[in-house]
Amino acid sequence: MSLPAQVRLVEVGPRDGLQNESRPISVADKVRLVDDLSDAGLRYIEVGSFVSPKWVPQMAGSAEVFAGIRQQPGVTYAALAPNLRGFEDAMAAGVREVAVFAAASEAFSQRNINCSISQSLQRFEPIMDAARQQQVRVRGYVSCVLGCPYEGRVDPAQVAAVARALHDMGCYEVSLGDTLGTGTAGDTRRLFEVVSAQVPREQLAGHFHDTYGQALANVYASLLEGISVFDSSVAGLGGCPYAKGATGNIATEDVLYLLQGLGIETGVDLDTLIMAGQRISQVLGRDNGSRVARARLAK
Amino acid sequence: MSLPAQVRLVEVGPRDGLQNESRPISVADKVRLVDDLSDAGLRYIEVGSFVSPKWVPQMAGSAEVFAGIRQQPGVTYAALAPNLRGFEDAMAAGVREVAVFAAASEAFSQRNINCSISQSLQRFEPIMDAARQQQVRVRGYVSCVLGCPYEGRVDPAQVAAVARALHDMGCYEVSLGDTLGTGTAGDTRRLFEVVSAQVPREQLAGHFHDTYGQALANVYASLLEGISVFDSSVAGLGGCPYAKGATGNIATEDVLYLLQGLGIETGVDLDTLIMAGQRISQVLGRDNGSRVARARLAK
Repeated sequence: MSLPAQVRLVEVGPRDGLQNESRPISVADKVRLVDDLSDAGLRYIEVGSFVSPKWVPQMAGSAEVFAGIRQQPGVTYAALAPNLRGFEDAMAAGVREVAVFAAASEAFSQRNINCSISQSLQRFEPIMDAARQQQVRVRGYVSCVLGCPYEGRVDPAQVAAVARALHDMGCYEVSLGDTLGTGTAGDTRRLFEVVSAQVPREQLAGHFHDTYGQALANVYASLLEGISVFDSSVAGLGGCPYAKGATGNIATEDVLYLLQGLGIETGVDLDTLIMAGQRISQVLGRDNGSRVARARLAK
Repeated sequence: MSLPAQVRLVEVGPRDGLQNESRPISVADKVRLVDDLSDAGLRYIEVGSFVSPKWVPQMAGSAEVFAGIRQQPGVTYAALAPNLRGFEDAMAAGVREVAVFAAASEAFSQRNINCSISQSLQRFEPIMDAARQQQVRVRGYVSCVLGCPYEGRVDPAQVAAVARALHDMGCYEVSLGDTLGTGTAGDTRRLFEVVSAQVPREQLAGHFHDTYGQALANVYASLLEGISVFDSSVAGLGGCPYAKGATGNIATEDVLYLLQGLGIETGVDLDTLIMAGQRISQVLGRDNGSRVARARLAK
């Protein structure tokens, strides 16, 4: 099977990454991170989340971050909007693309967002209506696609049903997230085979966590299934909330290195990206979670 | 393409791993490690190296380690023997399988073992003769197969020539080592395509370093090329001598987890293996280099 000629990298470090870092970070440092990322050539950056700071204190100040960044032409600056209030706050902050978030596992949905999967989808309807009216694009996330901390195995058909629902509601792309990082290459291929019967492959993305070291193999398996959009986090920002001390998001640098080796275009410059990741790692006082960055910087 | 039904894991932690750890380790701890590994179900363990302790102080005491281990039936306990003197010492210690080591890059051969590739192959001839007489099997390693610290890119045809030479000399299996860890999945597939025209796939093994985070994706790529033997190191023992602070050997636990997910048999028990890796990590006072182990132990 031929690999895609181009891949779009969705940089989730400023949102999904920082949200799971324990150390607080200033608006100025977030702005700098986002600007560094666009300077590296990333064309899609998830900048923040419009949620109550009571629930996610790390995401406080997302409006100020949006106001502070140097918005470059051709770059999508997106935000998570879990409800209509968040969507409206995002619009007020000038956001032009949002993301919504559902789970593939009932137990995870109940424990994480306190409602069933179908209730969570219903809650998105007013967001989708408002987004349509304001011509704002909505991206959908599905979590726990290859395993759930409460239910264990998750049926690919269940993932496909949730992905299909998000797609039918108007999400132009659905990102399938291996939240636990327990999935392996074979699971990944079966998942995309099953889900792509419901949502076209061109509208699916892969979102892998490296908790079990499998993320990059899963990216390669996804490429072999014709998937050409991947979420990743610079310097591997974001731990794994379900296993203390374990790794979470796959590092953008490591995905980019793989893609470059495969001759796949992304438009991203690796050296500039490594500098961006190293800077935010120093701000956070953490080790750089990218193996490519560590190897390059150690030389 | 169908994946192999079974994979043989060649555990190199006690030799290739410990050789690159900075902290010295006692014979008793080495013996315990090897016994733990055979208890976990590993059927091939590279126990030590018969080289001058002046050159590789970490490998001092290999004869004592061989004398101390509980040799289980069906398990191959191998040793590196870089020259005839080493081979004879290994035989005196009761070793029944040895490994020899060549490079795919001229510059690396010169700087690492102080002779050309063809000179290094000539030096193996007396070992091969002696091994044949004593019915000892010899495994061959080729290093720098996907990159050299001095030459950069390495031509797969050059790797194939060295692998073919080792095979022709009598090595029953040739392990291709990405010493730098710079190779990606596409490089890996091309490499095995080219080399397998000279040496049958069933007699080739993959040896990947995770310095750039690519090792597991390379294992998966190799499986897709029909390779069914992989070298790995429990707890990821062994740093990368060419990039201080960077990762070296791929962790056996992480390879095993991938293989289990793919439904591939190895005969190794993951939980017992994790305990073995955690114990030696504590002895060395280092972080456990297996992501699977870290995730499991963090739960």
